[in-house]
Amino acid sequence: MYAVLAGGVGAARFLRGLTAAVDPSDVVAIVNVGDDLTLHGLRICPDLDSITYWLSGVVHPTQQWGRADETHTVATELRRYGHDGWFTLGDRDLATHLHRTERLREGGVLSQVTDEIRRAFGVGVRLVPATDDHLETRIHTVDGRDLHFQEYWVRERAAPDVARITFDGAAAAKPAPGVVEAILAAETVLVAPSNPAVSIDPILAVPGVREALHRTPAPVVGVSPIIGGRVVRGMAHRLLPALGVEVSAAGVAAHYGDLLDGWVLDTTDADQSAVVEAGGTRCVTTPTLMDDIEVAAALARTCLSLAAEVRT
Amino acid sequence: MYAVLAGGVGAARFLRGLTAAVDPSDVVAIVNVGDDLTLHGLRICPDLDSITYWLSGVVHPTQQWGRADETHTVATELRRYGHDGWFTLGDRDLATHLHRTERLREGGVLSQVTDEIRRAFGVGVRLVPATDDHLETRIHTVDGRDLHFQEYWVRERAAPDVARITFDGAAAAKPAPGVVEAILAAETVLVAPSNPAVSIDPILAVPGVREALHRTPAPVVGVSPIIGGRVVRGMAHRLLPALGVEVSAAGVAAHYGDLLDGWVLDTTDADQSAVVEAGGTRCVTTPTLMDDIEVAAALARTCLSLAAEVRT
Repeated sequence: MYAVLAGGVGAARFLRGLTAAVDPSDVVAIVNVGDDLTLHGLRICPDLDSITYWLSGVVHPTQQWGRADETHTVATELRRYGHDGWFTLGDRDLATHLHRTERLREGGVLSQVTDEIRRAFGVGVRLVPATDDHLETRIHTVDGRDLHFQEYWVRERAAPDVARITFDGAAAAKPAPGVVEAILAAETVLVAPSNPAVSIDPILAVPGVREALHRTPAPVVGVSPIIGGRVVRGMAHRLLPALGVEVSAAGVAAHYGDLLDGWVLDTTDADQSAVVEAGGTRCVTTPTLMDDIEVAAALARTCLSLAAEVRT
Repeated sequence: MYAVLAGGVGAARFLRGLTAAVDPSDVVAIVNVGDDLTLHGLRICPDLDSITYWLSGVVHPTQQWGRADETHTVATELRRYGHDGWFTLGDRDLATHLHRTERLREGGVLSQVTDEIRRAFGVGVRLVPATDDHLETRIHTVDGRDLHFQEYWVRERAAPDVARITFDGAAAAKPAPGVVEAILAAETVLVAPSNPAVSIDPILAVPGVREALHRTPAPVVGVSPIIGGRVVRGMAHRLLPALGVEVSAAGVAAHYGDLLDGWVLDTTDADQSAVVEAGGTRCVTTPTLMDDIEVAAALARTCLSLAAEVRT
């Protein structure tokens, strides 16, 4: 069984590759919920949804999140009431939010409801939210504002300079059922090439997760989200400096520190391997830009090979 | 000022005629909420919405409720989760429900939110729900089931025989702000040609409304929802017998009893006038089938003329 710490699009593409390399039912993705928000009373889980849509093949092909053939009738109509609509709500996507919110109101917990939704989409990978409890990524800007991650990311397009990042509720949160169990029972733990600051760190902020990663007998192998010294997608370069993390493959590896047994870097970052290996983390380089599923599958296989090496 | 007791489509067409005859801002519609339901956590007010859509010109032209150019993407997508979708949820319509639900959750009361929504649609008529409190029309079937009105009406297409009708919550409900005031201050009170059993009766079931209709110095003039001895639209003929009410213009007038000072019957029901007049209610006959706005406007003018006659 493979346990994967996962954020949004980068993780989704990586998981799609992994499921081309191994049996999807052997994969458990532990997914970030720090980006979740409530809009119009609806619980929205962007990372869980992106992964579900990618793995079921219904994701919007160029946008890379949300649904293909999406329409925005409800959102357009909501403008009538003065809602500014900074967060895109597609009609198909909205059905997911409506259903999830209804099930949570009925007393379901997020991990149960998530499992129902991924099954409704025919997703073989088991998706588990990092926690069923409240955990919210807050971005504290240099100019003194305290923003929900989505306000910072989507509404303000990551423009404000960031002073620090906090995970509200994390201290009191418990890992969702299956999270610690998957990490401890895994043959290999993988860290997807997601934004370290706001995709992986909120998972690690749940008490018990970091401990499980240290305790597990499985090797922990991560994939660098940096390619050629740059962020592939998203705006991690706006967030990493606030953590004192260098925007480089070695910088991110150092941020994860002794959690990692192995680190997969893009070929263009080969010069970073020496410093990471000097820190005791085995490295391998391979193409990591997952433009198609074959590259993603090859990347997954490389991760598993590195895990096997590290294990022996 | 004109106060109108109103249900759904029949009332909406009547109000459209009335607003062609008088200044819309002089009209207060007191609207049934017994049909309201909560679906997927959303508060749906079918009668308020039908009237809003009719008066703003966005109603579906043949269906006569819901929105023109409507799509059903969200509802189609919800089937993925096993929702059977017996209640039609259009995408545009859903935006109204989402906004209303959000405003109610924020602490708004239905009468406030209703006023905001009708303004957002540019509706000049003031719409007031009969009550801000819980009031739910329940249909008790001969075979012993206790159904929400919409379950009976929409899901079961009014097929079960009806034993009785109750209005849950009515005894504890208070008239919404403006309801009693409008009735007492009106120059004329009108009873729209709505279903007596499930559109008008739930309004009258709110303590204080019936009393206000007796106390008001304004004449109360109703329009028969029966044309040529038959129900024009809907299935009132399935409900009236459960109340012991004859499906006829005179039968409905008798049901309203001494609330009425005047009763407007369709020309085809002229033979019913004598018995109604014998009961002390002034009658006039006129075409009441509101196929176009001119007929509806003429009907409204006839009502106002009858009110003037009754008043003197």
